[in-house]
Amino acid sequence: MLRSLRPYLSPASGPLEIGAREEDDAAVWRTEPGRVVATVDTMVEGIDFRLDWPAYPFRLLGRRLMAINLSDLAAMGAQPRHALISLCLPGRVRLRDVRELYRGIGERARAAGCTVAGGDLSGIDGPIVLTAALFGTIRPGRRPLRRSGARSGWALAVTGTVGRAAAGIGLLLAEKQPKTSAERRWVRAVYDPQPRVEAAQILQSVGIRVAGDISDGLYREIERIAQSACLGAVVEADQLPLDADLRRSRKHAWAGGLMESEDYELLCAAPRPLLEAARRRLRRDLDLQLSIIGTLERGRGIRVRVDGKLVVIPSLGAGYEHFR
Amino acid sequence: MLRSLRPYLSPASGPLEIGAREEDDAAVWRTEPGRVVATVDTMVEGIDFRLDWPAYPFRLLGRRLMAINLSDLAAMGAQPRHALISLCLPGRVRLRDVRELYRGIGERARAAGCTVAGGDLSGIDGPIVLTAALFGTIRPGRRPLRRSGARSGWALAVTGTVGRAAAGIGLLLAEKQPKTSAERRWVRAVYDPQPRVEAAQILQSVGIRVAGDISDGLYREIERIAQSACLGAVVEADQLPLDADLRRSRKHAWAGGLMESEDYELLCAAPRPLLEAARRRLRRDLDLQLSIIGTLERGRGIRVRVDGKLVVIPSLGAGYEHFR
Repeated sequence: MLRSLRPYLSPASGPLEIGAREEDDAAVWRTEPGRVVATVDTMVEGIDFRLDWPAYPFRLLGRRLMAINLSDLAAMGAQPRHALISLCLPGRVRLRDVRELYRGIGERARAAGCTVAGGDLSGIDGPIVLTAALFGTIRPGRRPLRRSGARSGWALAVTGTVGRAAAGIGLLLAEKQPKTSAERRWVRAVYDPQPRVEAAQILQSVGIRVAGDISDGLYREIERIAQSACLGAVVEADQLPLDADLRRSRKHAWAGGLMESEDYELLCAAPRPLLEAARRRLRRDLDLQLSIIGTLERGRGIRVRVDGKLVVIPSLGAGYEHFR
Repeated sequence: MLRSLRPYLSPASGPLEIGAREEDDAAVWRTEPGRVVATVDTMVEGIDFRLDWPAYPFRLLGRRLMAINLSDLAAMGAQPRHALISLCLPGRVRLRDVRELYRGIGERARAAGCTVAGGDLSGIDGPIVLTAALFGTIRPGRRPLRRSGARSGWALAVTGTVGRAAAGIGLLLAEKQPKTSAERRWVRAVYDPQPRVEAAQILQSVGIRVAGDISDGLYREIERIAQSACLGAVVEADQLPLDADLRRSRKHAWAGGLMESEDYELLCAAPRPLLEAARRRLRRDLDLQLSIIGTLERGRGIRVRVDGKLVVIPSLGAGYEHFR
């Protein structure tokens, strides 16, 4: 590990006994009896991001790397604890950029109560590859949130606002500079997503058991929750919490928000009274919206109610996740 | 995760409650109170390996990915428990190759008592990038092996045989086909290193506290252990456990074994009687050699005794690990 990165690595204190600042081969931390939630996620230049996107500093790249992994822990209802970081960096990346990357990683980690416990730096003759492995814990007496276990008649609800990241990606891929405040907001949703760590713990605390993050798309996530319970679903297009400027500016904006969303929001399924309780708590404690967007029902497939008519959308399941 | 990889992922059983076979965003396992040792290590095509090396199948690549990470856990005296795998694969990699990669990963994991708990697959427009994050535990009542804490007068000892991997890398970089049985053995030391997981636990069990793996070179590891105790060392060139064919075939073979070794062996430092006890246990239980190769002493720097004369070798410390 580069000595100049030490300020961005967590000092060995609290449960972290040996961290990346030390000369040892691995990190060491203390555990309590209970459940560990662990995830690994990688960002590849040219696939997940491009450095020629406008005003995309290395610090935000680092924040995003942590955010997408924190979102995976959030989706399971875990409290983040420790992170291991592996960066593959070509020679064109300057030492200053590496420090900024680590600064962003450290910011998001600290905000989530997570240490940066260990890391690895490699050269690469190719794109930048950033990997984080994260470990969290489930509070004693609670169970992890799961995709499976939903029941017919339960409602579906999603946190926050959807569609922004998809709209941002659209601008970036079209090589457009964001001009309006709405466009800047959409691009920010791509650059610096907000993982719903605290929101997930509120969902758990009111008794919700079924949830997942919608980073592969809201529709895909509805399908996963429905399919793992052998159910279908009806989604209300006009209940989707679309970004207001997006709803105004585009016809059928709901379709983008439903199908292409890459927002790091949570989808959950539960009896309606539980969702109402969660909604109140989320508004009060985090000023975060929870929108009921549909219902799980017997049968198969997802139908969307648009202007009073039910539209059937074909499954994205088979083959969709080939190399993801 | 690809469905066709499921046979290579560990089923949720024992401490693993939710694994990569499930549809969830993260793995979940149960922990006992104690210490977790965690490490992450990446192999990059073109830097750490080349696919055009002779007879280098994807299965061995997978075995090596696990072995280098298992070696990091071994160096801390940990029992491996769970692994997360992240693979970045360009389109030229066939599904069959991915399965073979996972087969090799699974083989090494199982042999070390480690589950393959989670994973991530990404596309990449560039080289293959393979990352593993591993978690192990330290037995109750034991402390992790550390690089720091050695004392003046302690002896240095290394497991197994050194120099093979460096000789193998030499052949591969010279684009030579291995022809003799010795050459095939050297290349095998590169392709399929044996992590010293059990050996490290024997070192611990006899009371040894200071150790590290020599994958960055035996000399570098001696230097790390000596420097972190503000000590120097004398190394006996004729005591280095060099591969016999290497010793016969090359003048100054000791220099290669000492400086360039990439063997995944363990170096440890302890009072001589402890090392003798460890030597007996390693021979009896694992049929593994432990060779005393030198002594830590007051002062600075590493000196090597060659044909009765002390040779000083300059420090590799500063700047050496820039992007490693």
